This record gives sequence, structure tokens and C-alpha cells, in this order.
Amino acid sequence: MNPFPQDQWYVAAWSSEIGSDLVSRTICGEPVVLYRTSSSGLVALADRCVHRRYPLSLGTLVGDDLQCGYHGFTYDCSGRCVSVPGQDRVPRTARVRSYPVVERSGWVWIFVGDPERAAGVAVPDTHWLDAPGWTAIGDVARIECRYSLLVDNLLDLSHETYLHAGYIGTPEVAATPTTTEVDEELGTVRVSRHMQGAQIPEFYARSTGMASPIDRWQDIEYRPLGFYRLDARIAPAGHEPAGDGSDPGAAHMKILYAITPETEHSTLDFWAVARDFAVDDADVTEFLDSMQRAIVQQDVDALNLLEPIVAAEERGPGVQELSIAIDSGGLAARRMIEKQRAAH
Amino acid sequence: MNPFPQDQWYVAAWSSEIGSDLVSRTICGEPVVLYRTSSSGLVALADRCVHRRYPLSLGTLVGDDLQCGYHGFTYDCSGRCVSVPGQDRVPRTARVRSYPVVERSGWVWIFVGDPERAAGVAVPDTHWLDAPGWTAIGDVARIECRYSLLVDNLLDLSHETYLHAGYIGTPEVAATPTTTEVDEELGTVRVSRHMQGAQIPEFYARSTGMASPIDRWQDIEYRPLGFYRLDARIAPAGHEPAGDGSDPGAAHMKILYAITPETEHSTLDFWAVARDFAVDDADVTEFLDSMQRAIVQQDVDALNLLEPIVAAEERGPGVQELSIAIDSGGLAARRMIEKQRAAH
Amino acid sequence: MNPFPQDQWYVAAWSSEIGSDLVSRTICGEPVVLYRTSSSGLVALADRCVHRRYPLSLGTLVGDDLQCGYHGFTYDCSGRCVSVPGQDRVPRTARVRSYPVVERSGWVWIFVGDPERAAGVAVPDTHWLDAPGWTAIGDVARIECRYSLLVDNLLDLSHETYLHAGYIGTPEVAATPTTTEVDEELGTVRVSRHMQGAQIPEFYARSTGMASPIDRWQDIEYRPLGFYRLDARIAPAGHEPAGDGSDPGAAHMKILYAITPETEHSTLDFWAVARDFAVDDADVTEFLDSMQRAIVQQDVDALNLLEPIVAAEERGPGVQELSIAIDSGGLAARRMIEKQRAAH
Repeated sequence: MNPFPQDQWYVAAWSSEIGSDLVSRTICGEPVVLYRTSSSGLVALADRCVHRRYPLSLGTLVGDDLQCGYHGFTYDCSGRCVSVPGQDRVPRTARVRSYPVVERSGWVWIFVGDPERAAGVAVPDTHWLDAPGWTAIGDVARIECRYSLLVDNLLDLSHETYLHAGYIGTPEVAATPTTTEVDEELGTVRVSRHMQGAQIPEFYARSTGMASPIDRWQDIEYRPLGFYRLDARIAPAGHEPAGDGSDPGAAHMKILYAITPETEHSTLDFWAVARDFAVDDADVTEFLDSMQRAIVQQDVDALNLLEPIVAAEERGPGVQELSIAIDSGGLAARRMIEKQRAAH
Repeated sequence: MNPFPQDQWYVAAWSSEIGSDLVSRTICGEPVVLYRTSSSGLVALADRCVHRRYPLSLGTLVGDDLQCGYHGFTYDCSGRCVSVPGQDRVPRTARVRSYPVVERSGWVWIFVGDPERAAGVAVPDTHWLDAPGWTAIGDVARIECRYSLLVDNLLDLSHETYLHAGYIGTPEVAATPTTTEVDEELGTVRVSRHMQGAQIPEFYARSTGMASPIDRWQDIEYRPLGFYRLDARIAPAGHEPAGDGSDPGAAHMKILYAITPETEHSTLDFWAVARDFAVDDADVTEFLDSMQRAIVQQDVDALNLLEPIVAAEERGPGVQELSIAIDSGGLAARRMIEKQRAAH
Repeated sequence: MNPFPQDQWYVAAWSSEIGSDLVSRTICGEPVVLYRTSSSGLVALADRCVHRRYPLSLGTLVGDDLQCGYHGFTYDCSGRCVSVPGQDRVPRTARVRSYPVVERSGWVWIFVGDPERAAGVAVPDTHWLDAPGWTAIGDVARIECRYSLLVDNLLDLSHETYLHAGYIGTPEVAATPTTTEVDEELGTVRVSRHMQGAQIPEFYARSTGMASPIDRWQDIEYRPLGFYRLDARIAPAGHEPAGDGSDPGAAHMKILYAITPETEHSTLDFWAVARDFAVDDADVTEFLDSMQRAIVQQDVDALNLLEPIVAAEERGPGVQELSIAIDSGGLAARRMIEKQRAAH
């Protein structure tokens, strides 16, 4: 069984990371080189020369073709080899894999699996990253842990109270029960926690200007494996959305994570925070950026530390876990991921 | 077969290392968190939360209870979980292992194995560490080697002549034959070397003020796996103990090592040097401390270097050793340790 | 099957590296200690004490004998143990392996395999290193790669155009086809590339003073596993050697590589460049030395990077390579090395 679900779109990079320099990434254990052509088209090829396995990302762009830095094998944007040293004839089988790739609202998605199936699989909706009325920040962190530890982390936000105390966690997060809904057809896991009359954490206090008590909603929608969205709503205690679905007086955030397996023991954590309030306020942007970076780093530190523990227990008599109600979402996610893996 | 003898007391820490901060140690491959309660009682628990294996040593003391830093699972001093997030009911099976622990003369001992058997196993005598008429120094070093290399090292002091030349070694140590006695019932290995009219090494010359020639006795008692005592006697050449067992005019040291396996490839080396002379002389204390640190470091350096060699040979056609008379004690110790391991 | 061909001479060191200090080297996975006796004789012994496997290279020379730094086991130049601690009798089996070793023109060769066969195996000819009319430079680099990657590298010089552009590579090297001859009886692989009217690279331009166009010949003779010689000839375009075999007006270099496997994943790369022109010109010597160091470092960097890629693919479904005409020499070399390995 492949350790990584196949026939999936995964975020490979922020758009801003890919230019005329060659970028090397490992996605689901596969080495990939990414670049932009002279007409700004995106190219994603296997990052190994067919000849002697040298990384093409150490080569040179010759026009829009990619020339290996070791013996000069040269490939066009489709991965076809167009030139080899010492002879005119290029072997027909000289070709590297090319990946379907699309760019949406600042994220570059790559399709891992059978390229023929890419057109039939929807790219997740991330339009808040560049929609009018919204402002977004974001970056990517590398975690030295298997993807499942990041999935566990994000699906169970009770950890905010302890790991992110003083930033985004208050006692109510851990204390409030959650509801979990699994939609096998849509392929989603939803976890909701609605806190009423709660304490406002620093993260929201300084960005919204609101004060305790607040109503604070956390509505997670997770699409295994690679995409997670947290709809956060903050409002003065008792304030309700209008009947027409609008919600003036409340502040909303879309907190997005793209979870991209790198290797079996490392994961790329693309994160973004989009908001519909104070959208032009640079101070709020800067504050949220520094807060969110600190929060992500707290998760990175915790998961970097957890990986060798889990790996060591795996080599021994087995990992012993005890799950409780708050873990319903995480356990459902694990089951869906196992099913995805078993499909190939 | 467990790589580490079970149902044994091992030194986990110096008393002075354990306070209200959480201390993490690995003992015989088992992660342990140690702390002191508000009433100074010692607590030793498994250092893994039952929920998602996060180290409890990264958590927080809430009164005398230990709260996990990831999702807030909280344990009392017996290891019973008393609080979990998102629900009032705590699962009955939520409990981490608690280890028997005792404190004696400045060392904290932990019982590894079946806790029911702890009461029936004696804690080794180390009273010289804080007895009237004695002064002691000591510390702990971590060695990146399997415990057996440290056992070999300590049971065969002929290495003093070469590895510790200029500190504690003189030509007589390697040149003088030893006698070895094994007492299966007591579970001890004794190795003795009595040198007459020998050169005095720097270690004893500056601490006792004696000069060559001296009579120098080395009487080792080793109790596998974890405890080693060297009774050292230095006296002017020809000077004999009195008939009543007293020994005025001679200087005595108890050089103690607690050997605590950390992992299969690392070991904690707790060392102490107690003396019955110049007990109030701070200069002598400082001199011996710096000498003994240097000697321990020489052993650490040699064994750190030896471990990968032995490990590599193990993976190959096997380790080839040639043993001679001086190795009788070490070989006897190995046999006793194998018997201890086989008992479980 | 032994990973390293046996009954072969390998270069262990430059003569200048071996003096009265003990030198430790790993050759074909075997730890070796090298030193010179008081009469300048070379000694090569297994670098592990028979007693407890401590490296003898950390010991001390006592006259021409080697004393272990741990317990003092002492060996003579033949590897026979002549002294042990605590007893007069030295066990008859106490002996470490001694390696045949010869010194030729500045290189120290060691025979790995059955020492009885050493006399029947010729040491490769390297006389240009100290022959009249020639000047040589050289050094040794350690590469964190299996020897086969260095063999591949050296047998296919088309990489000069890309990896060593600006130093030794010009477009003609990659563009010009090669001829390959395999002589099973002599045990040689020859690869030749004769470029006519070619561009002169910096390496030759500044050292010979010639200008484009030149005739540039590369004639490789490789004797698997350990010895590679490149005969380089540079001459003004159209200039031919005289009928008598002499070749005035041309510049010649012997570029030697001794390839010595260290472990299965690391290799010692002894290199030397001998020339028959400007032999007394210190500026040319200095220039070639700095150029060749840079070129070797480019190879080291590339191969350090390639090793983990090849190792990872080996652990997976297998390494996929596509070979073309320029690889004939490298593939022939691989076959000869496999035959050498299978012979034992």
C-alpha cells in the first residue's frame, strides 16, 4: 500500500516561490522540479535525469528547456528528452515524468497519481486568499513528522488551550465539547465547537478590538488528505447572524492549511489566514502574521518532537493510544485516509 | 530477551537534580519523568501521555498533579489520570506507569521491572556519600555506549596505566596480577589487586601528601548490573592495618559508580569519590574533583569511540575478542548479567 | 559476495602522509593503521586491538612496536603481540593482520586480499609522478559515495562540459563521440576522444600558453578497480606527432586517479596531475593545482549529492538508468568490477 494517497491535488508551493529559478520539492516521496517558462507557464517534472539520476533542479534553463548539470541531457516542458551528449539520436524512452499543475489564488497545486485522472478531481476552493473584501497572510513550514501527526493536531483544537496558551488558546476551547460529522460522499470531516460567553484570546482581542465575553465558533472542514479549512467566527456574546445569512458585527477568518506529505517522516505545512475585517489595516496584518507564525512554530516544535517517539514505538511492541470524544474527528480522518491509500 | 536486567534498582538521578522542575530521563529504554511534590516526595512516572504519547516532562505541575502540555490530560502522583479535555468522565484505563523510587545518601534509585518485587530487592549500600568522617564528590556523565563497555572498563583497571597515565595510572597497575572471586549467592564479583612498594600517582600524591613507595590496594565489589564500588587503600610501603581492623596512617577511598542503562547504545555513568582523609580540606576536594572529572572524561571519550566499532562488528561476522587473566572479573560480570536478563 | 574486489593493490596514502605519527585509514571496509619504523620502513596493521577492539591508531609507538592506548597490548611490525598486561605469557593467537605495502613514486599501495598473492599482482605504473622531465601535483579527497559513482564519473568525461564548464570543459567534449576498447586479458578499459580544431579551456590555455583552435586528445586507460590514467594531449590544430613517436610542440599530461573504496558508501579519491611542459614554472604549478582542486571539488560535491539518491532508489523499486553510447566505457568497467568481486 502506497504510504501516500494517490490521485490527489497537493499544494506544492506558493505562486511567489516559483519563478525562473529552479525549485526542488519532494511531494509524496517524489522528487519534483518546478519552474516557470518564459510565458509564465508552470512546469513540474520529475527531478531526476533519466541517465544517472542527477537532480535536474541543479541544472540550467536553456530557453524553456531544462538541461541536466552533469552530462547535459536536455528536456522540454513535457519531460521529453531533446538532446543527449555524444550522439544525435535521442532514445525514444528518454523522458521524465511531467505532473499536472494548476495555480489558484496564490497556491500551486500538483496532481500526484495518474495524470489522466487529474481533470476529474476538483481543486479545493481557496478563493478567500485573493477575494475582494478579504485580506490574507501565509507561508510554509516544514515539519519533521509524518502527515498523520499534523492531521491529528489540526482536527483536535483542544490543544490550543495548552500548546497555544496566551496566543489562541483559552480554557473554554478544551472544556467545550465538539460535534463531528463525516460525509463519505463529499469526502469531508467536519468538527464544530461553539463557545458562548467565552474569554477572548490575544489573537482576536488585538485584531478585532473586541473584548470578553465573546461568542467564538470553530467550524472545521477537512478534505483528506491535503486540505483543511477552519471557519472562525468571533462576535460579542449573544450576537447572532442575520436571518439572510449575513453576519455584520462579527469577525470572520478562514484559516487554511494545505497538508503536503514530503516523505514518510516529513510534511510541508502551507498555512494561510484570511480575514474579512480590518482588511486594509497593516498593523493588524503584521500582528496576525507574527502571532500565526509563533503558533505554527509551536506546532512544528511539538510535532518534530513527537515524530521520533511515535517512530520508536512503531519499531517496538506498537503505539498505545487512548482516544476520547474530542478525537472523533481525527479518528474519522484517519479512516478516510486509510481508505484513500487502499484505493491504490 | 530484554536487553536490560529487570527487577533491579538503578540510580536515576542525584537528589540535587530533582526539584519542582520536571526532569526527563530514559532508564533501561523507558522514558521516565521525575519530580518532587510540595511535600518533597519523589514521583517517577512514565514520560508519555496515554492520549497521543506526548512527553509529560514538557507539561506543567498543577499542585502535585502533572498536566500534559499538548491536550491537558492530567495525572496524579500515582499515575492515575484525573482530568481530560471536552468531557467530565475520565476513562478508567487512563493511567501511566508509576515507578518505585527511593532516595539514599544523595542518590535517587528507581526500580525497573515488576513494582511488586521492589520491596524484596535491597538498595545497595552507599552510606559513605554522607557518613560522618567521610567527604564525597560526584556527578553524572552520559556515555554513547552500551552498558557492557562501561562494565568491561571498570572491572579491568589495568587500563589506568595507559588511558589514565599521569592521573591515576602507574606501570604497576597493568603489571600486577589480580584475583577474582565470584559469589553467585550474594550476586557479587570481586577483583583485587594489591601493589606493594609501588609508585604513587598524581591523584593520590597531591590528595594524601604521601610519596613513593606506597602500598596500594584496589578491591572492587561489583553488583551487576547497576552498582560498582572500588575500595582504594593507600599507605606508606609496608604499613599494615591494625589487628582490630582499624587502619590509622592509611588513606581510604570509596569510588562508587552507578551504571544505569539508558538505551541499548547509551549509558548513564553516576560517579562518586568518598574519602576518609583531609575531609575538611577544600583544596583537596577541588583537586580530586578536577582529577576525577578528567579521568571520567577519558573513559567517556574512549567508550564513545568504541561503541560504533563494536556495533559495526556485530552487524558483520561478529566481534572477535581475545581475553586474558585480567579479564576474569569482566567475563564473570558478563555471565551474571546474561543470567539476570534470561530471568525475564 | 564481497562488496570490494580482493587481491588488489589500492593506494592507501601519499608517502608524505606517513611518518612517525600513526595514521588511521579505512580501506575496503577494513580499518588499517599505518606508520613508518625508525628505519623508514612502512608498516600497515589491522587497526583493532585483539583484546577489546580499541583502535591501535590511538596508541603509542614504543620503538618500532605499537602499544594499544587502552590496556597496553603491544605489537611488533609483523602484527605479532609481544606484551600483554598482568601476565608474562602472551597468547599465541594474539596477532593482528599485517598488510603487504609498497611505496612507488610518492604513493603508498596496500594489498587487500590474500597476502600470499601480493607478489603476483603488479603495482600500476605511476612513474610520471617523479620521473625526470615531468612535474606533478596531487592530493587526496574523500567522497561520501560508493566507488562506482566515481568510476562512472571518470569514465564518461562528457560531464566536463557541464559540471566543469569554465575550468576544463568546452562544448566539444560532450559533442565528440568516443571509442571504447576492452582488453579482458590485460584487464583494461580504454576510452578515447580526439577533438580536432577545438576550443581551448582555461585549464590548458593558461598553463600551455596555446590558443584556440587546438587538437585535444583524451585517452583513458582504466584498470579496475583502483587505477585510472588519462593521457591528455594538447597541440595547435593540425599539429601531428613525429613519426618516431616523439611529439614536440604538443603538451602532455598524465592525469592519475587512484580510486580506493573506504566503505560501501565512501571512497578515497587520490589524484595527481603530471605534465611534461613548463616543468620548472612555479606559476603554472600553482595555477594547475588550484584549477584541479576546484575540479575535484566539483566532482566531490556532485557525487556527495548523488550517493543518497542512488541509495534511496536501491531501497525502493530499484535504480532506473538510461545508458547511451558515451556510457560504453563505464558499463564495461562495471562488468569487469563485478567479475572481480565474483572471483571471491
